[in-house]
Amino acid sequence: MKRYQRAALIGTGMIGGSLFSALKEAGAIAHAVGFDARREVAERARSLGIVDEVAASIAEAARAADLIVLAVPVRATESICEALAPALSPEALVTDVGSTKREVLLAVFRALPFPERFVGAHPIAGTERSGPEAADRALFSGRRCLLTPAATTRPEALADCIALWEKAGARVEQMDAAHHDRLLARVSHLPHVAAFALAAAVGRAETAGISAGGFADTTRIAASDPAMWRDVLLANRDEVLLALEALDEELGALRRAIAGRDGAKLESLIARAKESRRRVIDPDSEGGGR
Amino acid sequence: MKRYQRAALIGTGMIGGSLFSALKEAGAIAHAVGFDARREVAERARSLGIVDEVAASIAEAARAADLIVLAVPVRATESICEALAPALSPEALVTDVGSTKREVLLAVFRALPFPERFVGAHPIAGTERSGPEAADRALFSGRRCLLTPAATTRPEALADCIALWEKAGARVEQMDAAHHDRLLARVSHLPHVAAFALAAAVGRAETAGISAGGFADTTRIAASDPAMWRDVLLANRDEVLLALEALDEELGALRRAIAGRDGAKLESLIARAKESRRRVIDPDSEGGGR
Repeated sequence: MKRYQRAALIGTGMIGGSLFSALKEAGAIAHAVGFDARREVAERARSLGIVDEVAASIAEAARAADLIVLAVPVRATESICEALAPALSPEALVTDVGSTKREVLLAVFRALPFPERFVGAHPIAGTERSGPEAADRALFSGRRCLLTPAATTRPEALADCIALWEKAGARVEQMDAAHHDRLLARVSHLPHVAAFALAAAVGRAETAGISAGGFADTTRIAASDPAMWRDVLLANRDEVLLALEALDEELGALRRAIAGRDGAKLESLIARAKESRRRVIDPDSEGGGR
Repeated sequence: MKRYQRAALIGTGMIGGSLFSALKEAGAIAHAVGFDARREVAERARSLGIVDEVAASIAEAARAADLIVLAVPVRATESICEALAPALSPEALVTDVGSTKREVLLAVFRALPFPERFVGAHPIAGTERSGPEAADRALFSGRRCLLTPAATTRPEALADCIALWEKAGARVEQMDAAHHDRLLARVSHLPHVAAFALAAAVGRAETAGISAGGFADTTRIAASDPAMWRDVLLANRDEVLLALEALDEELGALRRAIAGRDGAKLESLIARAKESRRRVIDPDSEGGGR
């Protein structure tokens, strides 16, 4: 595969850091330049060997780069594309790692001079940790990476982007950006909203250090970065609101069965939830036993 | 500590099986008799060495027993106490492992001839797995076990029960049954309801095998046994409904911030959820950093 002579990482946090660590390890990057809105974060990424050089500006990072990876909160995409624009080489591959894809695509079309060289990407991996210290070059190994090319995307940019993520160990799948956002609203954004609400509701009462019955697991993702999740939820607002309606309906059905002491209904709702979870996690399995 | 000459386990599933495995390992039980509503489950517990003998009835299991452990769905407590009553020795210690404690106490007062020898217990441990094959003698090691003695409980029964659970490796704490149920509604029952609702809501849509962003963790407890959770939620109905109100309010606040594109409010709600989770899980820590 292609070896990038000068790869720019905009946003040197956990996700971007993990990607660049993997790509450097795989020999896919000759020289890596990092930029972060908080310069000390970029300096930490350099001291960890994630990038070789810290750029003072986005334009400086982008200049002469043949690969540019945006690993920033999705809401920052447009202003970063504007800052990239004057320095962008027509041959550079531009990709991102954002959790929503329609907003990113709109920002790219508005602000990038060569949007046909941009390929949106969303690696389905991550932890609630953040910062370059949490970067892990094996983070994407065996995990899916969803690419959302637009109708105007150049085939060679798409091919390069597929090769890039495969080099990082990911299993690449392609889908439409709108479909991506609808899907992620369900499988990721809604669980986050539920975890935020649950953590806050439980925390209202004095819990005496007893956190039983899966509270820690159920709210693990509530420990995620607030600014990042603010952006994700707003960027995917319409789909998230639809998903929240579905959650409300399910909570309402459970509440009615509990309030009405309807044991048969309650058991069937719980059994359905259990089966639903199994199907979401492993759609190829046959089900059957409890 | 006391060595029980004939210990009866009513309900030979995962929790009861784990306790008896631990007690046998610790030499606290000379001979164990098991009964299960599904005889083949008791037979499996015997073949696994969890009990030494399978009883044909609850009364047969209880006859001459100096320890009786009820490890059954909470709703079955009263009928089991009625079946125990004719065979119960006045010296026997009776305890349980139920996830709610007021209903259990009421059942005991209604149906047991010596309710002052009963000590309600709730070990804060478990997995979504069930059956004697899932029993693990280290399950309670270092975990809390909440004992909920009543005002009428005999001090020596309480002392024996404390020693019993400590022998199984648990850290014993005592609290009022009503306080227990309020606490558990928040830290355990509400997370289960949320996980059931979330699993069902996500499962409504085609998710293409993508289960990202913590869905598996967030819904892990939705794989729990439906009949058991039907009983727990109905047994603790009033507290669960109150806890659900708190969840609804938090979901409503998040929904309004998302619908109104109020980024500042949304970020502060998420940050509060994150802090709340930290406080619930580790109330002694100072917080501070994100």
